[in-house]
Amino acid sequence: MRALILGGGGFLGRKLAGALAARGSLRGAAISRLAQVDLAAPEPVSGAEGLALDITDRAATAALLGQGWDAIFHLAAVVSGQAEAELETGLAVNLQGSLNVLEGARAAGGAPVLVFASSVAVYGGDVPDPLHDFVALQPQTSYGAQKAAVELLVSDHARRGLIDGRSVRLPTVTVRPGKPNAAASSFMSSIFREPLQGQTANCPVGEDYPIWHCSPRVVIRNLIHAAEVDGAALGATRAFALPGRRDTVGEMIAAMTRVAGPEAATRITWERDPVIERIVMGWRAGLRPDHALRLGFVADASFEDNIRGFLEDDVAA
Amino acid sequence: MRALILGGGGFLGRKLAGALAARGSLRGAAISRLAQVDLAAPEPVSGAEGLALDITDRAATAALLGQGWDAIFHLAAVVSGQAEAELETGLAVNLQGSLNVLEGARAAGGAPVLVFASSVAVYGGDVPDPLHDFVALQPQTSYGAQKAAVELLVSDHARRGLIDGRSVRLPTVTVRPGKPNAAASSFMSSIFREPLQGQTANCPVGEDYPIWHCSPRVVIRNLIHAAEVDGAALGATRAFALPGRRDTVGEMIAAMTRVAGPEAATRITWERDPVIERIVMGWRAGLRPDHALRLGFVADASFEDNIRGFLEDDVAA
Repeated sequence: MRALILGGGGFLGRKLAGALAARGSLRGAAISRLAQVDLAAPEPVSGAEGLALDITDRAATAALLGQGWDAIFHLAAVVSGQAEAELETGLAVNLQGSLNVLEGARAAGGAPVLVFASSVAVYGGDVPDPLHDFVALQPQTSYGAQKAAVELLVSDHARRGLIDGRSVRLPTVTVRPGKPNAAASSFMSSIFREPLQGQTANCPVGEDYPIWHCSPRVVIRNLIHAAEVDGAALGATRAFALPGRRDTVGEMIAAMTRVAGPEAATRITWERDPVIERIVMGWRAGLRPDHALRLGFVADASFEDNIRGFLEDDVAA
Repeated sequence: MRALILGGGGFLGRKLAGALAARGSLRGAAISRLAQVDLAAPEPVSGAEGLALDITDRAATAALLGQGWDAIFHLAAVVSGQAEAELETGLAVNLQGSLNVLEGARAAGGAPVLVFASSVAVYGGDVPDPLHDFVALQPQTSYGAQKAAVELLVSDHARRGLIDGRSVRLPTVTVRPGKPNAAASSFMSSIFREPLQGQTANCPVGEDYPIWHCSPRVVIRNLIHAAEVDGAALGATRAFALPGRRDTVGEMIAAMTRVAGPEAATRITWERDPVIERIVMGWRAGLRPDHALRLGFVADASFEDNIRGFLEDDVAA
């Protein structure tokens, strides 16, 4: 089992590499090669390689994919805020880069498993709630549109037997460790991560803003399950929402208070940001991920668990 | 009003050019320039220009689009049969070519109206009937997947105000004049066109195969309406099915017999073609095009009218 993580230097890529290295196998086979690939070669987890690749470079992508991989996790992307601010960059990386990955995978042969990290940002527009597995996609960000377009191409490559593709729509993953980034959803981690560590953070939306979210632990477990689930069980529905929880910002802050005490919440400021608000108000939280639940994907039991996981995995470490 | 027809040398492009030239105006403005563009410069209708362009040529596409157009009809594509047989060709023309068109349109500025000819081929898969305006797309052909991906990018460009985009999903257009082509649906015209003119034609599917179809007259009327309909009335639903009729092959043949007598139907042979069948069985006929009907798009009253229209417009001429 040779496993490749594109976007392997990012927060999820590193956690995924760590989880794969720790379990040592995937799809019932021992992992013989594990590579973390990113624009700059990542510092790999123990047992993995760190490789540099710009997926907008078609030839370089073909060369790397051509080395032969049994499972490819495609997490490489520019995030929502940047894709909205820079249409050309988003199209180059999120769309054309993904096309290069698909081209490389089909040229390599062997129909590798390809897990594409899509996003809840594909939902939006005039589509009525609830967002079940068979609703139309009317993304209200360029990031979401690019992810949705790639989903279609992944599914078509899978239909043709060129890859064994699975596109999973990630909830907002919170609490993310590290620094704020250019994702419009970045504050959804900052307002917990910073206050829990004695710093202030701003919440640019109101307390009643609802989020479809999951913890890093759960999303890593689901990404691995996405590679392992039986392709035949997917049917034609090879792009689908992962389970998540729907909570408002206020409910999540209350959960943080129950775990860590009342101090943290006092460090949150509440200045509205119309740019962020315009993007995230186009997102949706009313999902019904029946397909994923039937296939054994999971959600967090509570946001309290999520806060505890962050304190254990990222603050203690 | 400067109007550009990409794919202007094809059957629909020529009819559209003729209709636009005949009415002389679009969106309430006199047409001052009308161009039919295709791989080889088309013989233009009276009052139009014929120009050569390969939309896979990014620079040439940018140069043509940069000349300044108020309305762009994007009908240029490789058809379903070819896109299924040659994945790379379909991706190059239907996807990358369309990306070049969008790039040219956004670089030109002025947010031109862009009517993208999508297709009922975007529907399929595990999505339950009826196919209303808010159902997921699980295309079962590469042609359909490429069209669906472009729809998303057209809608995103429209959302950003870069174009005033509208993607309309064409039913199977029958009866097409001329020769059979590489479209998997080609037989749906052949079995009427050839027998009505004394020749034999083969039907590769059974009599009970249902088709979502419309006549050339109606689709041209709807394409023009797609350019004229008020953008604000579309909301976020800028990709939608055009009205059509659902009839079986057998019902359509009966209609031909009622108009033209019993001779024609005896010229149809019934040899199954598994390649064609595999493609067209993935298509769907149970559509509910409510959005389009509300916006004033129309369907044929009967297939008899459609046969009469073919005899008047294409056989007599």
